[in-house]
Amino acid sequence: MKKLMNEPVNYVDEVLDGMQLAHPRIFKVDGATGRVLRKPVLEPGRVGVVSGGGFGHLPMFAGYVGDGLLDACAVGDVFASPDMNPMLEAIRLADGGKGVLCIVGNYGGDKMNFAMACEFAEMEDIAVRQVLVTDDVASAPADQMNKRRGVAGMVYVMKIAGAAAAAGHDLAEVTSLAQRAADNCRSVGVALASCIVPQSGRPTFEIADDEIEIGMGIHGEPGVWRGKAKPADALAEELLTHLTGDLSLASGDRVSLLVNGLGATPVEELYILHRAARKILSEQGIDVAIARVGNYATSMEMAGASITLMKLDQQLETLLAAPATNPFWSV
Amino acid sequence: MKKLMNEPVNYVDEVLDGMQLAHPRIFKVDGATGRVLRKPVLEPGRVGVVSGGGFGHLPMFAGYVGDGLLDACAVGDVFASPDMNPMLEAIRLADGGKGVLCIVGNYGGDKMNFAMACEFAEMEDIAVRQVLVTDDVASAPADQMNKRRGVAGMVYVMKIAGAAAAAGHDLAEVTSLAQRAADNCRSVGVALASCIVPQSGRPTFEIADDEIEIGMGIHGEPGVWRGKAKPADALAEELLTHLTGDLSLASGDRVSLLVNGLGATPVEELYILHRAARKILSEQGIDVAIARVGNYATSMEMAGASITLMKLDQQLETLLAAPATNPFWSV
Repeated sequence: MKKLMNEPVNYVDEVLDGMQLAHPRIFKVDGATGRVLRKPVLEPGRVGVVSGGGFGHLPMFAGYVGDGLLDACAVGDVFASPDMNPMLEAIRLADGGKGVLCIVGNYGGDKMNFAMACEFAEMEDIAVRQVLVTDDVASAPADQMNKRRGVAGMVYVMKIAGAAAAAGHDLAEVTSLAQRAADNCRSVGVALASCIVPQSGRPTFEIADDEIEIGMGIHGEPGVWRGKAKPADALAEELLTHLTGDLSLASGDRVSLLVNGLGATPVEELYILHRAARKILSEQGIDVAIARVGNYATSMEMAGASITLMKLDQQLETLLAAPATNPFWSV
Repeated sequence: MKKLMNEPVNYVDEVLDGMQLAHPRIFKVDGATGRVLRKPVLEPGRVGVVSGGGFGHLPMFAGYVGDGLLDACAVGDVFASPDMNPMLEAIRLADGGKGVLCIVGNYGGDKMNFAMACEFAEMEDIAVRQVLVTDDVASAPADQMNKRRGVAGMVYVMKIAGAAAAAGHDLAEVTSLAQRAADNCRSVGVALASCIVPQSGRPTFEIADDEIEIGMGIHGEPGVWRGKAKPADALAEELLTHLTGDLSLASGDRVSLLVNGLGATPVEELYILHRAARKILSEQGIDVAIARVGNYATSMEMAGASITLMKLDQQLETLLAAPATNPFWSV
């Protein structure tokens, strides 16, 4: 293992401290646990938006705190759900009297702990709602949506919810818009090389030098196909097939396309994959209204990429295009 | 070699095409050579700013085309200077009647070809100036500045020049400000793992699993020290020592600090390195007015990082903080 770090036990806290030092107008570490990242200035009088999850996926989750995105985020250890305390702290901090939406990835710990945090918040008279994100098509078939993991589609849900809250919608509306974003997102990934969890020091999985694995999760959960590496054009075709069918996309539909790097893959390759996906979608008459290319939901130094499609309607498109203030969400 | 690509011979062109497909309001591929990336809409009546260089360093060079940054950029093959034709095309495109500044990294091919392109441009009555960037302190001692390579400091020079041109300064002023940025930048890098040039298919250099190399160039040029990996805090101290002395920084100085990823290093680790650097600078009374953390000048999948300091005065700080419209330059 060769990482730019100090003691593995301090990995998460040092990263969070680095984030607030680098971007003091955007990020502030807070909470008795020290495991909440929040905006330094929270606006009362509008709906709060929070999320939370295991660490090692930056910018996901905590990196998306910012105006027009999350108000606060609970931070776990590497690949481990935060417990309910930072979640409850994040909810309390984000509450400006209009209630709080929690955006939850479909992982056992995150679900259970957010459910508990929400119960406690309600006892404190904070109105809370949850939206569960289940965008990873490789993790379960379409008729078992509730078993699908939340991956890069989380970012779209955060952006839509954050923009809806900033636009002044009430909790029911923000929740409904975030749910619509979640319902219209599908993702699938391909892994080329493993990451290394700092405290273990070993690759999470082994994969041969000429192999790729389609459908692998962002913690190295097994995928649906492993075999020889393919050219980017063929790979994009295979990945998109998993998405377009599941989303029932048809000619004339407008989508946002996110080609996401898993951490160690050069952005050059992401643009090649983006180009390949664009050609295929264009042939199907599907219009990519908003494109995103870069590292949005990673697994530290895992190599590979994921493709996410969000089917757009006019309202989702407007919210997605709304400005946000965040180092990881540029034009 | 395992890359998300198609035929290696099409690597550069497919990336550029992907960039213009993803960001059509920011990037347009142009030139008879197909090797110019430019803004789709160029504004006449102000100074043009161009750069150019070998490929495989995204966002450097071409990724920094955008309002408040470069107007056009010449693109070479991977790790190979563009020839003078795309450079001349970039200059012509960027000329809005007020002349063009070329920002040139100190590499033999880039220097020679920009010199030729500028001669031809002058024959066409385009006023041209050049600023040479030599920020890599590891590549030559301070008394041989003209032998130092241009690395991540290029980004600062592009940003200052682009902001100065957007603010309406004339060619002499834009050149003088860009030169001041270049004179006040120092960088040093540390490599953890090699990149692979697509057409060669092999790592550019070998480095053991527990070794790092300080001072290595962004094409794998030899560094100044190779040895066992160190904790991030110790590494930051060693890297900064190379910079602060060379820049004659003293307590009370204001700087911008860029912790740059070389391509495959997780942003988590960049924040740990940023935190370490901040602590050291803070102890020396040096104030980090503007921080940048992320992948700004890479070598595809090379692992590692570089640290750049730019000493600020009020005018440089204002220009650095000015808005820019670009997917790689966010808040």
